[in-house]
Amino acid sequence: MLKRRSFLATAAVALSVFMAGCGEQKQEAAAEAAPAAQEKITWKMVTTWPKNFPGLGTGANNLAELITDMSDGRLEVKVYGAGELVGALDVFDAVSRGTAEMGHGAGYYWKGKAPAGQFFAAVPFGLTAQEMNGWIYNGGGLELWAEAYEPFGIIPMPAGNTGVQMGGWFNKEINQISDLEGLKMRIPGLGGEVLKRVGGTPVLLPGGEIFPSLQSGAIDATEWVGPYNDLAFGLHKAAKYYYYPGWHEPGTTLEALINKQAFEKLPKDLQTIVLAATRVANADMLAEFTARNNAALESLVNEHKVELRPYPQEVLTQLQAVADEVVAEQAAVDEVSKKVYDSYKSFRDQAIDWHAISEQAMLNARNPQ
Amino acid sequence: MLKRRSFLATAAVALSVFMAGCGEQKQEAAAEAAPAAQEKITWKMVTTWPKNFPGLGTGANNLAELITDMSDGRLEVKVYGAGELVGALDVFDAVSRGTAEMGHGAGYYWKGKAPAGQFFAAVPFGLTAQEMNGWIYNGGGLELWAEAYEPFGIIPMPAGNTGVQMGGWFNKEINQISDLEGLKMRIPGLGGEVLKRVGGTPVLLPGGEIFPSLQSGAIDATEWVGPYNDLAFGLHKAAKYYYYPGWHEPGTTLEALINKQAFEKLPKDLQTIVLAATRVANADMLAEFTARNNAALESLVNEHKVELRPYPQEVLTQLQAVADEVVAEQAAVDEVSKKVYDSYKSFRDQAIDWHAISEQAMLNARNPQ
Repeated sequence: MLKRRSFLATAAVALSVFMAGCGEQKQEAAAEAAPAAQEKITWKMVTTWPKNFPGLGTGANNLAELITDMSDGRLEVKVYGAGELVGALDVFDAVSRGTAEMGHGAGYYWKGKAPAGQFFAAVPFGLTAQEMNGWIYNGGGLELWAEAYEPFGIIPMPAGNTGVQMGGWFNKEINQISDLEGLKMRIPGLGGEVLKRVGGTPVLLPGGEIFPSLQSGAIDATEWVGPYNDLAFGLHKAAKYYYYPGWHEPGTTLEALINKQAFEKLPKDLQTIVLAATRVANADMLAEFTARNNAALESLVNEHKVELRPYPQEVLTQLQAVADEVVAEQAAVDEVSKKVYDSYKSFRDQAIDWHAISEQAMLNARNPQ
Repeated sequence: MLKRRSFLATAAVALSVFMAGCGEQKQEAAAEAAPAAQEKITWKMVTTWPKNFPGLGTGANNLAELITDMSDGRLEVKVYGAGELVGALDVFDAVSRGTAEMGHGAGYYWKGKAPAGQFFAAVPFGLTAQEMNGWIYNGGGLELWAEAYEPFGIIPMPAGNTGVQMGGWFNKEINQISDLEGLKMRIPGLGGEVLKRVGGTPVLLPGGEIFPSLQSGAIDATEWVGPYNDLAFGLHKAAKYYYYPGWHEPGTTLEALINKQAFEKLPKDLQTIVLAATRVANADMLAEFTARNNAALESLVNEHKVELRPYPQEVLTQLQAVADEVVAEQAAVDEVSKKVYDSYKSFRDQAIDWHAISEQAMLNARNPQ
């Protein structure tokens, strides 16, 4: 018989990484020290997103409210937008320090601290949303992610996915790879490194600073998320061409960061509720983006006269070759990055094989190109 | 500001359908009559799957255990495999009657009772898993599904997805549409109706009866799920050719059936836990299939020497034309089917447009065909 408790087994594995070395007794002591069931606990959740920002910020809100409601208010989670309690890019540090018990962001924002985290956010020409979830939950990813964040006292969980992102906003056409040379573009993570290798200058800016930077000319181009979010920022007011697909972010995964000490103090049912709520949030955001992106795209193209453009296949092929190098080099950064890379690559190779005859074959059968 | 409480808002909409006509007072009365928080409740969950069957049966087990664990045992859900309490295809009736408080199955198994339910299981050349979730949770689908099952006192929730299924097992090659003529094939729902229109004979059999029927020659061909499940049934021992993609089931959604009266008796936090647990189960099963199908496919092809075959594009094009007719006719069956069809078709058209430049473009960029 195959394992019956995949959800709890995975959660248990994630926890066991943190419990390693503590021994059973310490674990039991933590449980005994847990507050009585009726005691009310309040947690702060700091986020990388503008307060209530569609999809990303509202996804964090939904996660907080679900925990509060499932626990009947025993664990109330209060959400802070970027800059309210800490800056957009300080979320990882804040959760590590315990300034906040939870955070909501994406792994490529803190690549300077935990480089392996980038694999769990977005890998150029890597896994789609569905594949990311397969790898993280059922392919060994979550255990490695937990290991990567363990030195910081943080438990990571996927908590939102944008699906395939858009390729970016430009004021010039991209007809060949050399058209990317010299471009100062807002693009985070491994995708940014790929841009650098082909002659561009990647810049990391939090969402709230993108529009003014593009409008003022401080940056030449940007990617952000997809039509639903890009329309909300008004990026079409500062750039003319909108390229697809988002080769650099094929299934960007957002993350819930949970302070390990705070988590360990919870009784077991609240721990289960917190972890399960992240799973709901992870799936719900993808459903929301899937439902909302098309209408936003139609508005951008039909009302705002944005020029929608595909990257030429030749450009994509060249970018993929560079991306494969960049991603492989990332494995050499530290020991955990190596383990994550090996796991990721093995899963990606299998996923490409399986999806060639399932998702890809089906989409092409339904809508021949 | 966009709506902040997408999860609870959707749940509230689903509930409001059942509460319609009850008025606020009755709703409050139900809440007052709810058992005290400490009282232990036991529910039965009947399923369409063999007990502990990989992916499908274990997914139902995980759902039950998650509800039990998140509620700290206040609501314990006990799972029954097909035939243990009621037959595989009697799950809908059992939940409607209250023989069991929950069920786990798929909407096309009870098309004779609630025809509109088929749209929420699988539509030939229709929505993929990701798109199904977009439609159901954020595109108006769930409200219509609730309306379709309301006369039976059942609350439906998606509770598992297989992703794109395989096309089926045959002992002859399918080179042209006429090769399907005269075939007696196990294939449920709207896909079965398509097979009928091209000259085949569709048969509905629960999972447990497929292998013996195929081996004895009672049926000539069958589809079931995908490599992970098909290998578990040993279907490769009774057929030689394995066709892809599963044009008839591009993102099959399994459902949790919840007895409305039993649900209304729960306190609000347990109601939230039950609905959220179905969301976890829905996403988890897809992740599991995504992670497990490839290894099973490799075993089928390399160890068991199954012949993997693509349906010719011409056959797929002809099947899609028939499928579009069949699905449109289904709208005429009853009033709710018409509403469901209109909603489904509108979402599908948009999803094809959006995914042409996101998922489909990305898969083809990553792995050019």
